[in-house]
Amino acid sequence: MQPKQATEADRTNDEEQAIRSLVDRWLKASEEGDLTTMLSLLSDDVLFMVPGKEPFGKEVFARNYENMKGKKMKTDSDIQEIRIIGDWAWMRNFLRVTFISSSGESTVHSGQVLSMLRKNPDGKWVIARDANLLMPESASDH
Amino acid sequence: MQPKQATEADRTNDEEQAIRSLVDRWLKASEEGDLTTMLSLLSDDVLFMVPGKEPFGKEVFARNYENMKGKKMKTDSDIQEIRIIGDWAWMRNFLRVTFISSSGESTVHSGQVLSMLRKNPDGKWVIARDANLLMPESASDH
Repeated sequence: MQPKQATEADRTNDEEQAIRSLVDRWLKASEEGDLTTMLSLLSDDVLFMVPGKEPFGKEVFARNYENMKGKKMKTDSDIQEIRIIGDWAWMRNFLRVTFISSSGESTVHSGQVLSMLRKNPDGKWVIARDANLLMPESASDH
Repeated sequence: MQPKQATEADRTNDEEQAIRSLVDRWLKASEEGDLTTMLSLLSDDVLFMVPGKEPFGKEVFARNYENMKGKKMKTDSDIQEIRIIGDWAWMRNFLRVTFISSSGESTVHSGQVLSMLRKNPDGKWVIARDANLLMPESASDH
């Protein structure tokens, strides 16, 4: 039998892996225009926070995403912290998103994202709150 | 004897009150230029996230605050959610900050703040992560 501490560490590790895989699926779906998958990774009461706007939920998120359909998106994420607290977790991620318009122009947004995640009774993690601090990169950032 | 559920609800309520009082003390201290009190309400490993900057810790926070000493600050906060999860909590707050320069000009910043709070072994809550989405209010916001 394994010592209790190792078992707990293993479990935390499994949950962390589950959250990393959620992020991978989220980013892949967002690049592929797969809104159905994206919505399945959100809690029903999810709230997105971005600078200069009121918080918004699932429906507005879907509408905003549909309105961007003309653009291609490339994402690059660097998860910096995940903290599991029972059926909740918080995560800090550095995200860089490149938008490519239909005419081929690209703009890059980057910044921190602080997210609250929740584990559903079926064991599946979903995003519940998401504070997205991404801003357009300017020449002065380099 | 009280039913277990009521006792737990009472405890959650006490923790919520403790966090609300932390916010009150934080805002009061920030208006009064009381950096010592502010720093005592932060975890040693605190990280502040704001749009367009790298995350920063206690030392940089203190320096930034000292650099603003010429300005007066008025704050107005509207806590919209507090969720206690054992020794952790997350909070969503709508914050409006009015800065008044020494020449009397005022500028208003407002927006959401998503914070992670942690309860120290001594029972004291501190701010551990703080994603601050405040932006200058423009005429178009009204």
